[in-house]
Amino acid sequence: MPRYAALLEQFHIVRGHSCALVQNLSDADATAQSMDDASPAKWHLAHTSWFFETFLLRDHASDYRLFDPTYPYLFNSYYEAEGERHARPERGLLTRPSLQDVLQYRTHVDAAMTEAMDGFPEHLLDLVELGLHHEQQHQELLLTDILHLFSRNPLKPAYSALAPVRSVEPRPMQWVEGNVGIHRIGHEGADFCFDCEGPRHDALLHPHALANRPVTNGEWLAFIEDGGYRDARHWLSDGWAWVQNQAIEAPLYWNHASDLDWAEFGLAGNRTLDPLAPVKHISLYEADAYATWAGARLPTEAEWEVAANDGLTDSGEVWEWTGSAYRPYPGFKPAAGAVGEYNGKFMSGQFVLKGGSTATSPGHIRPSYRNFFYPHQRWQFTGLRLAKDL
Amino acid sequence: MPRYAALLEQFHIVRGHSCALVQNLSDADATAQSMDDASPAKWHLAHTSWFFETFLLRDHASDYRLFDPTYPYLFNSYYEAEGERHARPERGLLTRPSLQDVLQYRTHVDAAMTEAMDGFPEHLLDLVELGLHHEQQHQELLLTDILHLFSRNPLKPAYSALAPVRSVEPRPMQWVEGNVGIHRIGHEGADFCFDCEGPRHDALLHPHALANRPVTNGEWLAFIEDGGYRDARHWLSDGWAWVQNQAIEAPLYWNHASDLDWAEFGLAGNRTLDPLAPVKHISLYEADAYATWAGARLPTEAEWEVAANDGLTDSGEVWEWTGSAYRPYPGFKPAAGAVGEYNGKFMSGQFVLKGGSTATSPGHIRPSYRNFFYPHQRWQFTGLRLAKDL
Amino acid sequence: MPRYAALLEQFHIVRGHSCALVQNLSDADATAQSMDDASPAKWHLAHTSWFFETFLLRDHASDYRLFDPTYPYLFNSYYEAEGERHARPERGLLTRPSLQDVLQYRTHVDAAMTEAMDGFPEHLLDLVELGLHHEQQHQELLLTDILHLFSRNPLKPAYSALAPVRSVEPRPMQWVEGNVGIHRIGHEGADFCFDCEGPRHDALLHPHALANRPVTNGEWLAFIEDGGYRDARHWLSDGWAWVQNQAIEAPLYWNHASDLDWAEFGLAGNRTLDPLAPVKHISLYEADAYATWAGARLPTEAEWEVAANDGLTDSGEVWEWTGSAYRPYPGFKPAAGAVGEYNGKFMSGQFVLKGGSTATSPGHIRPSYRNFFYPHQRWQFTGLRLAKDL
Amino acid sequence: MPRYAALLEQFHIVRGHSCALVQNLSDADATAQSMDDASPAKWHLAHTSWFFETFLLRDHASDYRLFDPTYPYLFNSYYEAEGERHARPERGLLTRPSLQDVLQYRTHVDAAMTEAMDGFPEHLLDLVELGLHHEQQHQELLLTDILHLFSRNPLKPAYSALAPVRSVEPRPMQWVEGNVGIHRIGHEGADFCFDCEGPRHDALLHPHALANRPVTNGEWLAFIEDGGYRDARHWLSDGWAWVQNQAIEAPLYWNHASDLDWAEFGLAGNRTLDPLAPVKHISLYEADAYATWAGARLPTEAEWEVAANDGLTDSGEVWEWTGSAYRPYPGFKPAAGAVGEYNGKFMSGQFVLKGGSTATSPGHIRPSYRNFFYPHQRWQFTGLRLAKDL
Repeated sequence: MPRYAALLEQFHIVRGHSCALVQNLSDADATAQSMDDASPAKWHLAHTSWFFETFLLRDHASDYRLFDPTYPYLFNSYYEAEGERHARPERGLLTRPSLQDVLQYRTHVDAAMTEAMDGFPEHLLDLVELGLHHEQQHQELLLTDILHLFSRNPLKPAYSALAPVRSVEPRPMQWVEGNVGIHRIGHEGADFCFDCEGPRHDALLHPHALANRPVTNGEWLAFIEDGGYRDARHWLSDGWAWVQNQAIEAPLYWNHASDLDWAEFGLAGNRTLDPLAPVKHISLYEADAYATWAGARLPTEAEWEVAANDGLTDSGEVWEWTGSAYRPYPGFKPAAGAVGEYNGKFMSGQFVLKGGSTATSPGHIRPSYRNFFYPHQRWQFTGLRLAKDL
Repeated sequence: MPRYAALLEQFHIVRGHSCALVQNLSDADATAQSMDDASPAKWHLAHTSWFFETFLLRDHASDYRLFDPTYPYLFNSYYEAEGERHARPERGLLTRPSLQDVLQYRTHVDAAMTEAMDGFPEHLLDLVELGLHHEQQHQELLLTDILHLFSRNPLKPAYSALAPVRSVEPRPMQWVEGNVGIHRIGHEGADFCFDCEGPRHDALLHPHALANRPVTNGEWLAFIEDGGYRDARHWLSDGWAWVQNQAIEAPLYWNHASDLDWAEFGLAGNRTLDPLAPVKHISLYEADAYATWAGARLPTEAEWEVAANDGLTDSGEVWEWTGSAYRPYPGFKPAAGAVGEYNGKFMSGQFVLKGGSTATSPGHIRPSYRNFFYPHQRWQFTGLRLAKDL
Repeated sequence: MPRYAALLEQFHIVRGHSCALVQNLSDADATAQSMDDASPAKWHLAHTSWFFETFLLRDHASDYRLFDPTYPYLFNSYYEAEGERHARPERGLLTRPSLQDVLQYRTHVDAAMTEAMDGFPEHLLDLVELGLHHEQQHQELLLTDILHLFSRNPLKPAYSALAPVRSVEPRPMQWVEGNVGIHRIGHEGADFCFDCEGPRHDALLHPHALANRPVTNGEWLAFIEDGGYRDARHWLSDGWAWVQNQAIEAPLYWNHASDLDWAEFGLAGNRTLDPLAPVKHISLYEADAYATWAGARLPTEAEWEVAANDGLTDSGEVWEWTGSAYRPYPGFKPAAGAVGEYNGKFMSGQFVLKGGSTATSPGHIRPSYRNFFYPHQRWQFTGLRLAKDL
Repeated sequence: MPRYAALLEQFHIVRGHSCALVQNLSDADATAQSMDDASPAKWHLAHTSWFFETFLLRDHASDYRLFDPTYPYLFNSYYEAEGERHARPERGLLTRPSLQDVLQYRTHVDAAMTEAMDGFPEHLLDLVELGLHHEQQHQELLLTDILHLFSRNPLKPAYSALAPVRSVEPRPMQWVEGNVGIHRIGHEGADFCFDCEGPRHDALLHPHALANRPVTNGEWLAFIEDGGYRDARHWLSDGWAWVQNQAIEAPLYWNHASDLDWAEFGLAGNRTLDPLAPVKHISLYEADAYATWAGARLPTEAEWEVAANDGLTDSGEVWEWTGSAYRPYPGFKPAAGAVGEYNGKFMSGQFVLKGGSTATSPGHIRPSYRNFFYPHQRWQFTGLRLAKDL
C-alpha cells in the first residue's frame, strides 16, 4: 500500500474519532468555554480542520475553495505567521457557526483531502501526518475541556455513562533502580514524532531509582491528612503562593460527597473516590510538594524515558509530571514555516510530562513524547511518579 | 371579569411573548453570556419562571412540586433573602439544562399558575402582577443581551431579518419651554407600578426648556467630527477616564463599513447608519459630554416626567438618560419581604432613564417609570434629549 | 484696609498654617503615598504652591521666573487644560525634590505673591482667594493622608502627641422637626464660596426630622454587635458587595486592642475607643446601612443646610454623609478657564457631605459648603446624622 | 589567625560597605519602593541585620536583647519558618523607623556580633559566612532598586556623580569552541558557596561554541533597527505576549535623548548610549529573541561554567542569561533549618544567570555561582552572550 493510501486510511480513522467524541454533546455543550485555558469542543473540531485546510488544501490543492472565508480568522489558534485571529478568551461567544455547521466543515475538508492526497509529494504527506497527530492532541484536550466545563455546572452532568473500570489492585509501590551513565534519548526511527522529541542525543544519568507505578489517591489522602496543603515547608515558593491565593486543598475534581467521604468528578460523573486509582488533576506544584513530603523527588525526563525504553515501568493512566523544564534538546531546530510555531516557542516556563492518560487517543503514546504544561495547570489528566537519588 | 381572570389572560400573553422572543435562537445562542452584565436568553426564561415558582407556587400553592430542586440555586438573580445562588459571571457555563428543558420548566410553572391563580387573595395577585412586569423587564434585557452577544461574533448574525422601519424624517429640533414651580410626580392611580415610582409627591421645577425629540445619529456625527471624544473639556472626570481607558470613539455598535461610512449593528444585523434615527447605545458619560458640547444639559427626571404628563414631548424610541441620580423619592419604603430587594437596594451610583425603547415590551411604558443603569453602561437602547436652563 | 492687603494678611496665615502642619514630619513621612487616593504631604505643599504659581504668577506677574521648570509637570493635580502631568499613583516615588526643596519652593512663591498682589485687579484677587480656600482643602487632606499612611505602619506612630480632648458627654439623641416647603439654599452674599455652592435657589422640603447630633461610637457598637455588617438586608447592593469583597467589619481605624476592647487609631496614635465621640471614618455605604438598621435614613443636603441655617443642629466634628448625589444646582455654570475644572467635572458617582471636621482648617466651615466623596471612601473624617420622614 | 578572627575582619568590611552605599541617599530615597519586586534601601540595610540578629544573636548569644521587638516582623523577607511578616508591597510605607534608626540598628547588631563571634562553634561561623554573602547579594539589589526608583523620577537624579569608565574598545566578537563530553561542574573546595551551587557533579556537553564576550549596545541597536521587537518569529510565546502587553521597544533604561539619539539611564544619571558597552537590563525573553534573530542560542549553564573554569571567556560586566532553567543539581539537598529556604524553594519558573556585574560586590563572583530571576525581569544588570551548536 503506498504511503498516501495508508495515511488516508489513518486520516479517516482519526477524523472519525473526533466526531465520535461529540456524539453525546449538545450544540450548547460544544460551544461553551469554561476558562481561558480551555476551548469549546466545537472549536477543537473546527481548528483541527482548519489545519488541513490551511497548510494543505489552501496552499497545495488546486481549485480548493475555502469552506467559509471567515473561518481562518475564527479557527487559527496561535500561528502568528497565519495572521490575525479571534481572541482566545472569546471562543465561547461563537454560538454561530453551529455544531452542525462545523460538522459540515469537517465533511467538506475531508472530501477535499480524500481527493487531494493521492497527488501529495512526501513533504506534504509529512504535513498530513503532523495534522493527524495534532488532531489527536486536540482529542484529548476536547475531553479535558468538556470535563472542566461540566465540573462547573452544579447539575454535575456526566459526559459518558460508562463508569471507569478498575478491577485490579495496583502493584505495591517498589523502587526500581535506574540505569546510570550515558544513554540515548529522543525519538528514533522513521515513525512520526514532533520536532521537539529530537534530535536523539546522549543524556547523562546519575544514580537514582524510580517508583514502579504512579502515586494513588489513597496515598494522596495521607498527604492531605498530614496537613500537606497547609505546610509551607513542602512547597516551592511559587506553589505556596498559588495554594494560598487559590485556596487549594485537594486535587482539582475532588469534592466532598458528605462530611466524611471524598468523591471525584470525572467523565462518568461524580463518583466515590477510588483509593486504588492513580491520583490525577494535580499541578506540578502539588506533585513537587507531595514528593518533598515523601522524602523523594520527581523524575527527570531522561530518567523516565530511559526506564520506559528499558521496560522498567508501566504507565499510560495519567500524564506524569517530571522535574524537567521544557527546553530544547541539544541541536534542536524548529520545523520550517508556520508549523515551526508548533513546539519551540513554548519552551519557557513549562514542565515536561511523560507517559499518557486514559484520555489519550489510541496510538498517541510513545516514550519519547514530551507533553508540557505550566506548573499551575491541572485540568489535564496529570499525576506523578516518585523518584529518588541513590 | 374578576381580577384573577384578567390577570391570567395577561399572564398567558406575557409568558407567551417571552417564548416568542427565542424562536430564532439555537440552544447555543440561548446559553452564551457575552459579559458579566448580560445574561443568557435561557437564563432570562428560567429566572422569570423562578420568580413565580418561588414567590407564589412554592409558598402559596398547596401540593406544588418544584420542577427541579437545583433550579432555585441556578436561577435566583440577586435576592439575598432567598439564599445562596449561582455566580452571575458563570451563567454562560450552564449548557445544561438545555433550552428545551427550560421551556418545559416554563410549561410546568404556567400550568401550576393557571390552576392556582383562581384561589389567590389580592396580595398574591399583586405579586403575580409584579412578576409579569418583572418578566417584561427581562424581555427587553433578553433582546439587549442577545444583541451584545451577536455583536461580539465576527459573523455578525442577525437576530431578526426584519429591517427597522424608518420612513419619516424626524421633526426639526425645537426647544419646548417646561412648566415651573411645584408639580406632582410619581405614580398615581390603581394601575401597577414598581415601588420606586412612588410615593407621588411634589417636585419643584426651575425655569427650563426641553428638546422636542431625542438627539439623532446625524447630530451625534457632528459631535464626533468636532473631536468630541478627544476633548476633555466636555467630559465628567469619571467619563474622561472611561473614554481613555476603553478607547471609546463612537456609540457601542457603530462600526466602519468602509473607510468613509459608518454602519450600526442591530437586531437586524449590520446596517448603514441612519442619520435620522435617534442615537442609541450611549453611556451617561457620552450623553453628558454631548450635552455639554451642545451648550445644554440633561433633563432632570422631574422635568421629563412633568413634560410627559403634559404631552409636551414624544418618546419611546430610546431610553433617555436624565441628569438625576437614582435615589428614593420622599417617603419611599421598599416593599416587604424578599421582593423588597427589587429596587431600593440599587439606589446608589446609578442614573435614571425615562421613556422606553423599541425593544420595550408592549404596555411597559409610562411617564412615572424609573429605569436605572450605571453611567458607563450602554448595551441598553439608551439615548438622550437635551435640556437647558432658562 | 484695601482688599489686597487684607487678602495678603490672610495669605500669610493660610500659607504658614500648611508649613506648621508638617513640623513633626520627616522627609520620608512627607514623601510616602499609602494609596492611590492619598497624596504625600510634600505633594500637597507643592501642589498648593503650583496653583498660585500657575494661575497668578506665571500668567500675571511680569518677570516671574518659574522656581523649577519641571515642577508644573510634577505638581499639577488634574487640570487637563494645564497639560500633561505626573501619574497620580506614582507621587510617592518622588523622593526628590526633598521636603526642604519644596519648602524653598513655597518661600519663592510666597515672596513673589507678596510683591505681586498689590497690583492685582479684582478678578485676580478672586483667584487668590480661591487659591487660599483650595489650600485649606489640601490642609485637611494632608492630615487625612498622613493618618492613613501612619495607620499602615505596624509601629503605629502618632502624628501629634496631643490627645483629642473630650470632656463633656454628648447630648442625648433627639429628633428635631425640620422646616417644610420652599426654602432658599446655596451660598449667599459677597463672601467667598466655591462655584458648586451656587446659584442660590429654592429647594422644596418634605416633612422630616433630623437628629440633633451625629451618631456616636457607642451607638455604632450596637450596630456591630447586632450583626449589622453581616446582614445584607441593611445594605445597598453596591455596599454589600464592598463589605464582602473588602471584608469590612468596623470603621476604618478601629482595631482590637485586646480580645475584648476596641481601640481607634488617630492622629494622636492608637487610643481606647471613646464611646461618646462621633463615629468617624465610615463610608456612605456604612452610613446608609446604619440608618436603615436604625429605621431611619440619611438627610438630604437641602434638609441639612436649612436646619443649619436655622441653627437647629450643631456640627463640625465630622463630615456628615447626606443621601444626596453630588450634582449641579439649577442654573449652575462652572467657572471660566482651567479653574472651571475645580468642581463641575466631578459631578457623577459621588455623594455630598456637609458640616466639617476637627481636621478642617479654621474659617473653612459654612452651611452652604458641599464636600463630596465616592460612596466607598472613608479615609476622611466622615460620620453621619440620622434623618426620617414625618 | 583563627577562623573567627578572619571572619570578623570580613564582617566589618562587608557591613561597612553596605553603609557606604547609602551615603548619598536621603531618608526619603532610602524609604521609597518603586515596584513590588524592589525593596527600599533602608529595608535592605535592616533585613541583612535581621539575618544576623535572628539566626545568630537571638538563638546563640546569651543575654542578647532584640534591638526592637517589632523589627523581626518588619524585616523578615520570606522565611516562612520565622513566622508572620510585613507584606512585601508595603515596604515603602515604612517611613518609620527612619534611616537613622536603621543605622543604629546596624550598630547594635554589629557590636553584639563582634562580642559574640569569638565563642561561636564552626557551624555558627558557617552561618555568619552565609550572612555575609547574603548581605553582598543585597548590596547589589540595593543598587538595582535605587536605580529603578530614580528611573521613575522625572528629575532623573544620579545616584553617583562618577561616570562609568569605558576607555577600551571591546574585542571583536569571535566564536570560541567549547569542551565536549563529561566535565565536572558545581562548587569545589572549602570556600564558601550557596547550597544550590552543589553538589559538584558530572555534566555532559554537546558540541558547541560560545562568543568570547557579551553582546554590545551597538549590536542590540541593529536588532531594534531590524524590527526585532515587532517580529513574532524571534520570540518565545510568553515573551511575545510580554512584549505586546508591556509595549516593550528597547532595554529597560534606554530612552530617547532626542528624536535621533538614544540615551541610557544609569547610576550616574542619564547618559548618551555607549555602543561599545555590553547591553544590559534585558529580560530572558529579549535575550532569547536576540539570539534567535542572530541565528544562535543562549549558553547552557554547564557550557558557561566549564568555559569559565577553562578561562575561555571573560565576564563580570553583566549577569548573563543562560538557557537553563533554575533546577536542583543531581543530589541537591537544601540546608537544614530556616536558612534551607534560601534557594531550593525558588526552583521553578526562573532561569540561571552566570557571571556578575559592575554592581556585584567585590569577592562575590565565582564560576559556580547560580544567580536566578524570572524571565520577564530586567531591573538587574542582565545581559547575554551568544552560543551555538556545532
